[in-house]
Amino acid sequence: MKRGVGNVKAEIIAVGTELLLGQISNTNAQYLSKRLAELGIDVYFHTVVGDNSNRLKQVILNAQERSDIILFTGGLGPTKDDLTKETIASVLGKTLVEHQPSMENIERFFKQRGMEMTANNRKQAHVVEGSTVLPNDHGMAPGMAILVENIHYLLFPGPPRELIPMFDHYAIPYLQSLYQEQFIVHSKVLRFFGIGESLLEEKLMDLIDRQSNPTIAPLANEAEATIRLTAKAKSLAEANQMIVGVEAEIESRVGQFIYGYNDDSLASVVSRLLREKALTLTVAESCTGGLISQMLTSLPGSSEIFAGGIVSYSSHAKINVLGVPSDIIAETGTVSGETAKAMATEALNQFEADVAVSVTGVAGPDPTENKPVGTVFIGLATEQGCQSFSLQLSGSRPNIQLRAAKYALFHVYQWLNRL
Amino acid sequence: MKRGVGNVKAEIIAVGTELLLGQISNTNAQYLSKRLAELGIDVYFHTVVGDNSNRLKQVILNAQERSDIILFTGGLGPTKDDLTKETIASVLGKTLVEHQPSMENIERFFKQRGMEMTANNRKQAHVVEGSTVLPNDHGMAPGMAILVENIHYLLFPGPPRELIPMFDHYAIPYLQSLYQEQFIVHSKVLRFFGIGESLLEEKLMDLIDRQSNPTIAPLANEAEATIRLTAKAKSLAEANQMIVGVEAEIESRVGQFIYGYNDDSLASVVSRLLREKALTLTVAESCTGGLISQMLTSLPGSSEIFAGGIVSYSSHAKINVLGVPSDIIAETGTVSGETAKAMATEALNQFEADVAVSVTGVAGPDPTENKPVGTVFIGLATEQGCQSFSLQLSGSRPNIQLRAAKYALFHVYQWLNRL
Repeated sequence: MKRGVGNVKAEIIAVGTELLLGQISNTNAQYLSKRLAELGIDVYFHTVVGDNSNRLKQVILNAQERSDIILFTGGLGPTKDDLTKETIASVLGKTLVEHQPSMENIERFFKQRGMEMTANNRKQAHVVEGSTVLPNDHGMAPGMAILVENIHYLLFPGPPRELIPMFDHYAIPYLQSLYQEQFIVHSKVLRFFGIGESLLEEKLMDLIDRQSNPTIAPLANEAEATIRLTAKAKSLAEANQMIVGVEAEIESRVGQFIYGYNDDSLASVVSRLLREKALTLTVAESCTGGLISQMLTSLPGSSEIFAGGIVSYSSHAKINVLGVPSDIIAETGTVSGETAKAMATEALNQFEADVAVSVTGVAGPDPTENKPVGTVFIGLATEQGCQSFSLQLSGSRPNIQLRAAKYALFHVYQWLNRL
Repeated sequence: MKRGVGNVKAEIIAVGTELLLGQISNTNAQYLSKRLAELGIDVYFHTVVGDNSNRLKQVILNAQERSDIILFTGGLGPTKDDLTKETIASVLGKTLVEHQPSMENIERFFKQRGMEMTANNRKQAHVVEGSTVLPNDHGMAPGMAILVENIHYLLFPGPPRELIPMFDHYAIPYLQSLYQEQFIVHSKVLRFFGIGESLLEEKLMDLIDRQSNPTIAPLANEAEATIRLTAKAKSLAEANQMIVGVEAEIESRVGQFIYGYNDDSLASVVSRLLREKALTLTVAESCTGGLISQMLTSLPGSSEIFAGGIVSYSSHAKINVLGVPSDIIAETGTVSGETAKAMATEALNQFEADVAVSVTGVAGPDPTENKPVGTVFIGLATEQGCQSFSLQLSGSRPNIQLRAAKYALFHVYQWLNRL
């Protein structure tokens, strides 16, 4: 009897001493988790265990107590360290049997390479009796799916280039066939700037507590805050509709800080708006030292909207290369709103762009001109005139630089949005 | 009573639903595993569990049955999802107490940003009673080390930029103090540029196979290759002596590709040499779009050696802002050795620097001027004249940009080294 996917519990067990030594990262667990989430299957645990039969056995016994689907990666190869299927067979009281098509695949593999097949390679064609074999189109060791006492055991080889296509082509149809309800899990990420993670969470606390579908998950990263909305539904349309409702409530509370969605970044959103409006941008950077230019030019096609920029890291460069009047610097210092405005205006003219943004500030570790670390001025110049914004940032030097660069892009974004 | 480190069993428990959803990878487990291996501490299990107190509790009870050291990552933040220390305290029958220095650190954090501290942030300063606090130099949530019934519990925040320095500076001395045999584990990283990881490994294969102390571990990262030499010895002097021997052998084979050691980067080595020789550098960037400037200015004190630069992303900017003669571009194109030389020469003059480096090329995804993606020219100009270098790089756009920027810095490095 099939049951709904909603209450199915899965876990992933990776077998390999190289993972425990930190020689490689457990990217398979991340890949499988992502794909299982899309299938609506909840993953509750990842475990990594070495190439040791006793410890693997203990891990399997634990997993049997709590999971409906147990996915194994690694330990299916030819060497004596590879003991995943042997251990599972022993725990389940099953034998290993030779799988003829897999044996032929292995023989073909050696023949094609003109190599003699060593005896230990025969072992790779052995599968747990009664299992559904998952073919390996990119290697020798086949995968397996075995159902014993309502628990599904799925075995995959360790190399991602073998595991990924095997999972996508053979395991997904197998898993989908198990469950009656074809659930869709769909996520939407809301991207915020100018509001901290904890303030954001506080403003949404009651919603986060109340909502279980879609779930609302805040996360802070790279000086930004994000909210991931994840809905489980019968169809994509239904999931989207569920997300729209919660999103509207979030927007009504903190909408002014939302600048983008999903894979957007401040640079990509600014680039898109510039492209849509057929405008070009230039930058004059002091304390961000080229970071804004780099963010913009890391995107393909940036030459359409980015004219270039000047990193004026010294007073000499500000005056002689960029063209800031020396009396402005003499009167207000290199870190001032007036200097920021002049930097933006000069860049606008030199690059003949439609909008120019500038940053001058103290990234640290030491204060400059008696201004404390974190003092930052942003200038914004267009044909209509120029304005400046002041900030007081904190954190390490790279953090101040990153946040100053993002604030500069955020001001360009707001200007573009008002056009 | 202390015992030898040889038979100590450790495991790592990562707490975070985002790991089980596959949104992020468990890089912390890999980092900790590597470092623990260097300390001679065997890691037997990794576990990932979601932000759920009951399941975390089960995982802890399991770990207590089998491990001497249990390391936790994640779940120390301000939100209600963060429940690692609460759950551990409950399992151990301990209370949470406010840690005054951590509270002051958090208050300072908010004050510096001119932000009001929300109530949920106070929670971050709570630690399990009786624990040794591991300070967080890069964030708000402190780490902890607690000894209960011969098991050491070590708690770390989830963000790698907080966890890594906390582990290196505070947890390693703590762990080393636990065991009788005071052997020192000492590493030295050799940094290579201009040679691929597989060629490097091939040239050192016999050494890598033969050597077990120091170990020789090659790693490729960020378009560079590195070799980590790790020696276990009774004293730092002894470890250093062991490393020197192997290092000399490596240098005799591939020394021309070594540009630095340990935390060096091409930008830091170039900056140091410029500072030593009291010289200044400027850059003219096209396809790297500000990346070289950003690499240099991300280092503190860069204003002493970096005059600034121009990102000339369009022909207009190359001709009108930078001053490249338009006939050079008309005759040879924007991506040519001649243009690269002119870019460097013009930047040298405008910024009145001692050395200028330029990059022009095709970062992709589309070819430019019929030149294939990956075509890159680097110009190097000094008072003595200028020269150009051509490269054919492969890979994605960000990879081509990164490698082009590093080649540019490598040419500056080689020039500085010859002075």
